[in-house]
Amino acid sequence: MTSEVKNVLLEKKPVKSAAVQVRKKGSVRRRPSQGTRHKSKILPVDTPNPVKIYFLGGLNEIGKNITLYECCGDMIIVDCGMAFPESDMLGVDLVIPDFTFIEKNRDKIRGIFLTHGHEDHIGALPYLLKVINVPIYGTRLTLGLVEAKLKEHNLSAKAKLIVTDSGDRVDVGCFGVEFIRVNHSIPDSVAFAINTPSGVIVQTGDFKIDCTPIQGEMIDIARLSELGKQGVLALLADSTNAEKPGYTNSERSVGQSFDILFKRAADKRIIIATFASNIQRVQQIINAAQAHGRKVAVSGRSMINVVNIAVELGYLQVPDGVIIDIDTINRYPDEKVVLITTGSQGEPMSALTRMAFADHRKVEVGPHDFIIISATPIPGNEKTVSKVVNELLKHGCEVIYEKMYEVHSSGHACQEELKIMMGIVKPKYFIPVHGERKHLMKHAELAKSMGIPNKNILIADIGNQVEIDENKMRLAGTVPAGHVMVDGLGVGDVGSIVLRDRKHLSEDGIIVVVTTIDAEDGHILTGPDVISRGFVYVRESESLLDNAKIIVQDVLETCVNKNIREWGTIKNKVRDELSRYLYEKTKRSPMILPVIMEI
Amino acid sequence: MTSEVKNVLLEKKPVKSAAVQVRKKGSVRRRPSQGTRHKSKILPVDTPNPVKIYFLGGLNEIGKNITLYECCGDMIIVDCGMAFPESDMLGVDLVIPDFTFIEKNRDKIRGIFLTHGHEDHIGALPYLLKVINVPIYGTRLTLGLVEAKLKEHNLSAKAKLIVTDSGDRVDVGCFGVEFIRVNHSIPDSVAFAINTPSGVIVQTGDFKIDCTPIQGEMIDIARLSELGKQGVLALLADSTNAEKPGYTNSERSVGQSFDILFKRAADKRIIIATFASNIQRVQQIINAAQAHGRKVAVSGRSMINVVNIAVELGYLQVPDGVIIDIDTINRYPDEKVVLITTGSQGEPMSALTRMAFADHRKVEVGPHDFIIISATPIPGNEKTVSKVVNELLKHGCEVIYEKMYEVHSSGHACQEELKIMMGIVKPKYFIPVHGERKHLMKHAELAKSMGIPNKNILIADIGNQVEIDENKMRLAGTVPAGHVMVDGLGVGDVGSIVLRDRKHLSEDGIIVVVTTIDAEDGHILTGPDVISRGFVYVRESESLLDNAKIIVQDVLETCVNKNIREWGTIKNKVRDELSRYLYEKTKRSPMILPVIMEI
Repeated sequence: MTSEVKNVLLEKKPVKSAAVQVRKKGSVRRRPSQGTRHKSKILPVDTPNPVKIYFLGGLNEIGKNITLYECCGDMIIVDCGMAFPESDMLGVDLVIPDFTFIEKNRDKIRGIFLTHGHEDHIGALPYLLKVINVPIYGTRLTLGLVEAKLKEHNLSAKAKLIVTDSGDRVDVGCFGVEFIRVNHSIPDSVAFAINTPSGVIVQTGDFKIDCTPIQGEMIDIARLSELGKQGVLALLADSTNAEKPGYTNSERSVGQSFDILFKRAADKRIIIATFASNIQRVQQIINAAQAHGRKVAVSGRSMINVVNIAVELGYLQVPDGVIIDIDTINRYPDEKVVLITTGSQGEPMSALTRMAFADHRKVEVGPHDFIIISATPIPGNEKTVSKVVNELLKHGCEVIYEKMYEVHSSGHACQEELKIMMGIVKPKYFIPVHGERKHLMKHAELAKSMGIPNKNILIADIGNQVEIDENKMRLAGTVPAGHVMVDGLGVGDVGSIVLRDRKHLSEDGIIVVVTTIDAEDGHILTGPDVISRGFVYVRESESLLDNAKIIVQDVLETCVNKNIREWGTIKNKVRDELSRYLYEKTKRSPMILPVIMEI
Repeated sequence: MTSEVKNVLLEKKPVKSAAVQVRKKGSVRRRPSQGTRHKSKILPVDTPNPVKIYFLGGLNEIGKNITLYECCGDMIIVDCGMAFPESDMLGVDLVIPDFTFIEKNRDKIRGIFLTHGHEDHIGALPYLLKVINVPIYGTRLTLGLVEAKLKEHNLSAKAKLIVTDSGDRVDVGCFGVEFIRVNHSIPDSVAFAINTPSGVIVQTGDFKIDCTPIQGEMIDIARLSELGKQGVLALLADSTNAEKPGYTNSERSVGQSFDILFKRAADKRIIIATFASNIQRVQQIINAAQAHGRKVAVSGRSMINVVNIAVELGYLQVPDGVIIDIDTINRYPDEKVVLITTGSQGEPMSALTRMAFADHRKVEVGPHDFIIISATPIPGNEKTVSKVVNELLKHGCEVIYEKMYEVHSSGHACQEELKIMMGIVKPKYFIPVHGERKHLMKHAELAKSMGIPNKNILIADIGNQVEIDENKMRLAGTVPAGHVMVDGLGVGDVGSIVLRDRKHLSEDGIIVVVTTIDAEDGHILTGPDVISRGFVYVRESESLLDNAKIIVQDVLETCVNKNIREWGTIKNKVRDELSRYLYEKTKRSPMILPVIMEI
């Protein structure tokens, strides 16, 4: 793995993909110059067909972003993300949207449009492609990341990926989807202006306003303003930071912190943890490393993958000789090395966590290390990040974390930026998206403060069908939507019963009681054997388990004497008696599984 | 429960306890006036016996605070707290310190001294009392809470609780322990000045500097300063907020917010969630309710308990007729009611969580409710609190949470207060306590910035034995220390094996394979039966489980044919083959439990 990556990193050999088509013709075309725009298409006089919007994810939740648009019998999908499992989804790997409604409407769907390459916007694509196969439109980096993902699922031959630039417009069915550049924590992010027979709908995707971005240009305020002037029917905008006042700082400010911190690190080795997909951050680390005469090594599977793709596609500018293989870092003095790694969220299997717990095969940390966690903990990860910080400190590392320095910049617009977006797009209707209830409500409040009338603002939920035309926006029913849990190869086979059992097992363990009885008269032939797992430490609880055996034996004998031969009844009696006894002795309620075999 | 509580709340009948003694004589005495203080006791000329400090908890962790002091063959214990289980301690109820070292030294221990009544300082007492029974010294409220706790464990008859006022000094063995008033988020909190033959050691307990406290007086800065002037050997101080710059706001500022918010709530019902033990907060809610003409009802078991005790002991001033029973709240108009409740941390079983998920028997929330979460999420609880907020918002409630208003004030000193403490106590040696590594290190940095030399600052760990005399402080070895997990009635019977099994079961469930074989020739008599729990949804996985059966059957038959009769070998073969098959089909690895019975 590493040597392969090293090759790619060092040689930057171009990898051609059969699946990725760069199409500048046919249905994808450059945005016409301002003069030739067909205004009639943008705000038609009569609107016989309202636009229907179906939210299959991303509302009242973080992640799993997916929105469907329908008009005149055509449908398009915007984004197809995954979500991380909630803490009560034991053993679940990831969560994807329920595709039932898409399956039912497979014949109407003309294309999938992706705003950017983050997992919460593209992560469920492999699962969707098993349901429908339609062209996927996205920018070059986004589709580069999609392709890598599809390869892992052996789906890359099947998919039709169509690279589309910001500024381009794709016409499918009655929809014309224009790609508009925005700033975000991954390059090549776009918003969409979706031209429909009823008017233009702007969906921002994830965005911020960064006037000094590291990669690419500033968000296309001009184009969004122009759309606003011409008239926008509805705006669907990112609510992630709607609770935060002010502005999100520019990604560039992080680079300035790096410069200060690199000086402060002096002769120590520098290790920086950040999100793998934050290519601008990685670029700034590489820039700082070069400026301070350090080599850069990369650690962590996802970091290696993304750096790999970004270098291939030209999104990461790496001067010759700066990148070194992680296997060779010990050949360089500490003050000549920067290690970029995953694990900024304290993920248990990540590279930084393994370094912190002295479990990394290649990197041993100590007082000679200056470690920067260039991220803020995602809600829910505060404790795991703290654990990693504490362990690193115990090793004597110097650690820069959280708000100690400006070593992170959010990818999402804060309140003032959200207001600018509303102010320039000037939508008639407003629907806040991408957020929990509290984010959506704050965003709705902002919209009100911007003068959008209450009746023109809708806080929707997943499964909602919203109808919009020039005269009204209304909730017009619901469609199937929800979460589908993925566990290993199983998609949707883990449901509430399995989760309930896993929860029970996780809290008190299991007791299996096995007996063989005579099919003729019900007498015990062997057993009962009592086996426990996750309940008590067996070696110190022999008498408890011996008594359990006696209790089961008594129940079985009583059943014989009373001529009770119905298995269900016998099992219930065993379960009840044993459960009562164990709870009395331990105040625990393990799952009890009686197995009776007849001969 | 409720009616009993109501009685107590309304009638305030004094509850006399045989176990709680109010002693003002004997070994407990009022602090002598300044003139008569024996300076020689405070800083002796020769120090043949260094003081030994043993940390059995509270360092490099949150909670489980317990410190032992030893000198001249005498020992005292300061605090005895519990900790909440870490996320990987599945099914564990609480965590207590390892008492091995205390058991070994039982004959030396002269008393237990408690700084205040929070669980992380008194929660493990019932378990300690099963090991040793020595007098317990604490202030009146602290011991009132301890007594309630001991009653639950049927230990109140056994314990010797000795009420001690701030300003008092208790002499036990060679130690003289002076109780010094501090401010904290529970009334009656104290620091200790521990007079030893080698000098005075100040242990702050949890504290903040609140110049305008709600209950009792301001922290006794004068006495701490006086000690500082006379010479303090060592300071052990609370590090919880050592990362936070500035000052903690006064508890009184929360009352001002309540006043504004009560006005804003207008004709809505007000529900306020806070920590049960924050009696000052509850007092302020009662004050605000009275000022705004509202009645107060109390919800949540721990809230009812604490309010009960606080009213009994006079720590909560409730004007007649203000408190009403929760069963009667619907008889009052919304604008006449305040409900105080538990659940400020989004705890799954708490009253507020049940209201949010429409699962509370007595309170149904809706657009007529104005809800204040008067707390900040403890690290790790951010997500559960968000969930509750989102659910309440979905019901149409107005919700004030987190930093929207100053509706919470920490009980712990921030950096400037910590510096004041060091500045007035002027210790020769400094040991930061109560905190994770990062907190201890920040606190140590503050000490350095205050001019305490590096060699006089020690960041210790649990299990450390620290020796201090006038000339040096040194790490002098380690003693047994760690965490003991409590699960139901079991103390310490859940260990790494049980937890490993619970983790395995929680992620992929279990498969039990049962077969009866002929003891003579090993042939299968019945089975194999394959039973799964928490693995797959059985109804949709019949063929998978049928194939599993066939695989087991094959393995068993092969064993017969090859004359393999060793059970361990057969079970391993079953486990390996089945595991391989299931992983290939599902990419999951359930626990496999083969049971073979012989007849």
